[in-house]
Amino acid sequence: MPRSDREESTARIGREIETLSGPDFTTTSEAIRRYAYTPEYRRTLDHFTAALEELGFAVTEDPVGTLVARNRPPGEPAFGIGSHCDSNRNGGRYDGTMGVVTALEVCRLAEEHGLDLPLQLISFLEEEGSGFGQMLLGSRIMLQRVSEDDLRERFRAVDDGRSFWEHAQVAGYEPARWRESIHVLDGLTGWIEMHIEQARVLQDTGKRIGVVNAIAGYVHADVNVRGRGDHAGATPMGLRLDPTTVLAETVLELERLATAAEGGTVGTVGEIELDPSLINAVAAEARFSLDVRGPQDVLFQRVARETAAFAERVAEKRGMAATYLERQSLPATPLDERVVAALEAAAADTGEPWTTMHSGAAHDTMCVAERVPSAMVFVPCKDGISHHPAEEADPADAALAAEIMLNAIAALA
Amino acid sequence: MPRSDREESTARIGREIETLSGPDFTTTSEAIRRYAYTPEYRRTLDHFTAALEELGFAVTEDPVGTLVARNRPPGEPAFGIGSHCDSNRNGGRYDGTMGVVTALEVCRLAEEHGLDLPLQLISFLEEEGSGFGQMLLGSRIMLQRVSEDDLRERFRAVDDGRSFWEHAQVAGYEPARWRESIHVLDGLTGWIEMHIEQARVLQDTGKRIGVVNAIAGYVHADVNVRGRGDHAGATPMGLRLDPTTVLAETVLELERLATAAEGGTVGTVGEIELDPSLINAVAAEARFSLDVRGPQDVLFQRVARETAAFAERVAEKRGMAATYLERQSLPATPLDERVVAALEAAAADTGEPWTTMHSGAAHDTMCVAERVPSAMVFVPCKDGISHHPAEEADPADAALAAEIMLNAIAALA
Repeated sequence: MPRSDREESTARIGREIETLSGPDFTTTSEAIRRYAYTPEYRRTLDHFTAALEELGFAVTEDPVGTLVARNRPPGEPAFGIGSHCDSNRNGGRYDGTMGVVTALEVCRLAEEHGLDLPLQLISFLEEEGSGFGQMLLGSRIMLQRVSEDDLRERFRAVDDGRSFWEHAQVAGYEPARWRESIHVLDGLTGWIEMHIEQARVLQDTGKRIGVVNAIAGYVHADVNVRGRGDHAGATPMGLRLDPTTVLAETVLELERLATAAEGGTVGTVGEIELDPSLINAVAAEARFSLDVRGPQDVLFQRVARETAAFAERVAEKRGMAATYLERQSLPATPLDERVVAALEAAAADTGEPWTTMHSGAAHDTMCVAERVPSAMVFVPCKDGISHHPAEEADPADAALAAEIMLNAIAALA
Repeated sequence: MPRSDREESTARIGREIETLSGPDFTTTSEAIRRYAYTPEYRRTLDHFTAALEELGFAVTEDPVGTLVARNRPPGEPAFGIGSHCDSNRNGGRYDGTMGVVTALEVCRLAEEHGLDLPLQLISFLEEEGSGFGQMLLGSRIMLQRVSEDDLRERFRAVDDGRSFWEHAQVAGYEPARWRESIHVLDGLTGWIEMHIEQARVLQDTGKRIGVVNAIAGYVHADVNVRGRGDHAGATPMGLRLDPTTVLAETVLELERLATAAEGGTVGTVGEIELDPSLINAVAAEARFSLDVRGPQDVLFQRVARETAAFAERVAEKRGMAATYLERQSLPATPLDERVVAALEAAAADTGEPWTTMHSGAAHDTMCVAERVPSAMVFVPCKDGISHHPAEEADPADAALAAEIMLNAIAALA
């Protein structure tokens, strides 16, 4: 397998990240803030376009602004690599962008090693949802997981409330042709996305590379407990219908169920609202969110179901009523065994510490995998901090990932 | 013991309540909203003044506006009765006002029965804190539990931010003489305040009268748990420092401790704040309030202490840190055994269902009791709803209370 000059790769990746953190590429100096149809986003696409054209790639954009670069004519087989280059509103330098930069490095390495690999780089639009409040928007448009009404009416800019459609038109795109976006995937023989892990599994286990074999599915839901509002001083313990007690029991039961389920299942209560919320009142109502995820549908869906049933049972036992309302859910995305195996072999070949793992977070690859044999590569992210200006990842790990991706693609070709 | 004509009393009390719920006596038609130095409050004092002068009482106001009516010259012994006639901002007809109306009825009954009892009626100012955000303000001024700086500078109107001092002056009072307010209590041989219960103990136990032998003290505090913010999907259960689990364990332990403590001890978590508060994030920090009360200092203070220690211990066991910060605390107010006994005897004499109980809520009587042998009488309040336009109490219960108060005072004289 080719060995890249990892020091050179590290330096190049570091320089790209540095450049794209400059004032031309973020709308605020306090964080990386970059989203679709802003001048800063436009300049980012232009930066990648110039670098890719220098490598001989033909660079286009799909009808809504997803960047697509190929070193083969449209429709001919090629292997897909990439990520997204928009950021969270209070984002860091690495989430998404380091994945595109690393894909660019793969293109450079292929060129330098004279491998003549057929490659297609994609930089997805609006993965974070900072512009229109819609996560994975570019890849969902590509996979036709939106409706025309969503794009024309429902999806509106966080900044000014105008529609996605209008913004896309003003930026020079042709949203009316959005359905053609799916052709971006035509001819793709595989897909690998590199991304920072956004958690601490790699750091805490001392690995430099995670080969991702599944992306977790999830259930997002709310539990509403209706108790009885009372004076906190004047209501004896035995006469209370305090919904915070149902909340408390459910938080602990969710922790127990998710831990017992194993297989990467996790469960979180991230939002809690009491009504009223006063130091001297027993709340009349408590609302709390459930986020239950995992790479195995049967496990995480069971935990969500059992947590809901537990809350309802405890509420009833205490003379109250709890209702469970699902906001949305998505099954897990198993990734392609062949692509995963190629990445594992290439990772093992480097002699560096690596592991196979699943992704707890959602990524554009969830959409791509519906049509193309796909996998992902994770690199560590310091202390798991992401979606924050303090986000930090090591270009040397990205350089290692680039070498692994290059060799996996070469092996699959 | 004299029997009052309870039907006549009920009708009179009902009429007074009806009158004082009219448009002249509230600043909004959606609730009773009446607080110090508003025209509606002024008209309420004028209404009581006229009624009391008709009974031969001399009516004055103290230097800040507390109404004082006596049927004996100043300084001569008299028995005190009364409550407050300001309301919560979103208040009902009965909280406070029914206590003053019932005290007026006691004066009427004393006159009708020719008892020649020495009486002093007080209607306290700003019990609810609607005007200046300061509960029990009139009785705290009277007992010198405020500083001059509080009155001149710190206590400011909720509506316009101007000082209590300025508002009192504009209303024609002499706040500079506030310290003289304590002389209102000169010569008082006892004090009884009637109030609606504001909870459901009387309703749920089928009693019409509660003789109050203590007013609960309380601890108000906050517990802050510092965990670690993480991605809800990407962080395995075993790598989490989730502060909501410490919150949950503490809510259940507080419930257990307060229930086990007995003696009227109660504990409530009424405010919960997660930071961040997002469905897809493990919170970095959880803040929750503690309200622990009871008529026995040793019991409720121990529950507060043990809850704090429990939270700290559980946090530490889970690798986090919890801190406990007291906002304020007040010891319980035991009421006068002789006055309580006289009320119990008078209540028993009516043949109506009654009980001895403590007050979980704070009342002006907490201040008066520091200088004058005091007790309170509670009447039921429908479903425990108070501080709300839906507040409801029965004038027939107030008429029964008036008879009991009259007989207790006669027995004590």
